[in-house]
Amino acid sequence: MSDKIPLNEKILSENDRLAAIIRRQLDKSRIVALNLVSSPGSGKTSLLEKTLVGLKGRLNFALIAGDVQTQNDADRLIKAGGKIVRPIITGGACHLDARMITRVLEDLSLDNFDLLFIENVGNLVCPSSYDLGEDMKVVIISTTEGDDKPLKYPAMFRRSSAMVINKIDLMGLSDFDLNRVKENALRINGNLTIFETSCRTGEGLKGWYEWLERLVALKKGRD
Amino acid sequence: MSDKIPLNEKILSENDRLAAIIRRQLDKSRIVALNLVSSPGSGKTSLLEKTLVGLKGRLNFALIAGDVQTQNDADRLIKAGGKIVRPIITGGACHLDARMITRVLEDLSLDNFDLLFIENVGNLVCPSSYDLGEDMKVVIISTTEGDDKPLKYPAMFRRSSAMVINKIDLMGLSDFDLNRVKENALRINGNLTIFETSCRTGEGLKGWYEWLERLVALKKGRD
Repeated sequence: MSDKIPLNEKILSENDRLAAIIRRQLDKSRIVALNLVSSPGSGKTSLLEKTLVGLKGRLNFALIAGDVQTQNDADRLIKAGGKIVRPIITGGACHLDARMITRVLEDLSLDNFDLLFIENVGNLVCPSSYDLGEDMKVVIISTTEGDDKPLKYPAMFRRSSAMVINKIDLMGLSDFDLNRVKENALRINGNLTIFETSCRTGEGLKGWYEWLERLVALKKGRD
Repeated sequence: MSDKIPLNEKILSENDRLAAIIRRQLDKSRIVALNLVSSPGSGKTSLLEKTLVGLKGRLNFALIAGDVQTQNDADRLIKAGGKIVRPIITGGACHLDARMITRVLEDLSLDNFDLLFIENVGNLVCPSSYDLGEDMKVVIISTTEGDDKPLKYPAMFRRSSAMVINKIDLMGLSDFDLNRVKENALRINGNLTIFETSCRTGEGLKGWYEWLERLVALKKGRD
């Protein structure tokens, strides 16, 4: 037996232990937590910028913006009206882990918001393996990345509950096929909730906002 | 002292040992090896498809196509005229490592080609840490990903020798600024050779082809 496997398992189970604690805290405070995962540049930050404006006065958000370097994303979210924004600079690490989230949550009052967005590092592989205590992972894919991505990175699509197909305004400019990407994604995970959006034109964002409001209402028990 | 760090170091130094052996083999056979790294969907495979056609009869290529799942990319490269094409399916792993390359090279006759392309897993973080015995890493970035990527994923741009800015035909459709991405990239790595290409329109590919021919000529000692 190699000694690599037990060590890896130990790291992951420690992560799962911390994630379970986070989940209990958020559940107790009835806060919805979404872990946003995607390739670099698919539009996670743009989607959050739009969401902050589109749901202003309706939902209170906390946002954690993970990045390998720079806190550009966090700065963008503050500029877009984010009141509770925390950057995590991983300093080279390719994913967020539950320990990083635990540290950030220690400083937040859980009474002040309804929904926690965790913007993960732009990486379609590694973040799929790390539970952050979220209710759901939401995978964002942009039309310029090609419609084969669900088949090539299946773990991320299998472990996500929703998929946002972003940059649909750029769709006619490549051989990206909207039906094919949905078919590919649903083949991996038949239960995906799918959104089609353009953060540039605003198309499709209404359905996304409504879904977020519904999630919050469900968790608060207002439905 | 944690026992995690030495293990990680051990894995990396074993990788470096194998990479050094690969490099010696390729140097001895005077084969240029380029490790293509990028986000998912930036156009690595498209660039290779074009290159196979554009340099047909001029250079002999071997291609290794790494992917988490599927051998779609390898199939595309064979269809585009690739004679020596080997898929590596990592089965979940987020990067290629030198051991995987070693195994593939065992079955290849190094007399049959001038240039080895290694198409890495689409991931702008992890592959930067793994030497595959290549002469150079070439990072591909597409205009739809945004001009901030060099600052957000600096290791990849620091360790690459060339940067291909792809999908320049889609540039007017976002706030992507060509000068800004170059400035950001050169701030991280002042020695980057930069190409601007569109695999869709063919723009800029000539300079890329010429550069490849020059690299081969240099290594073969024909210059």
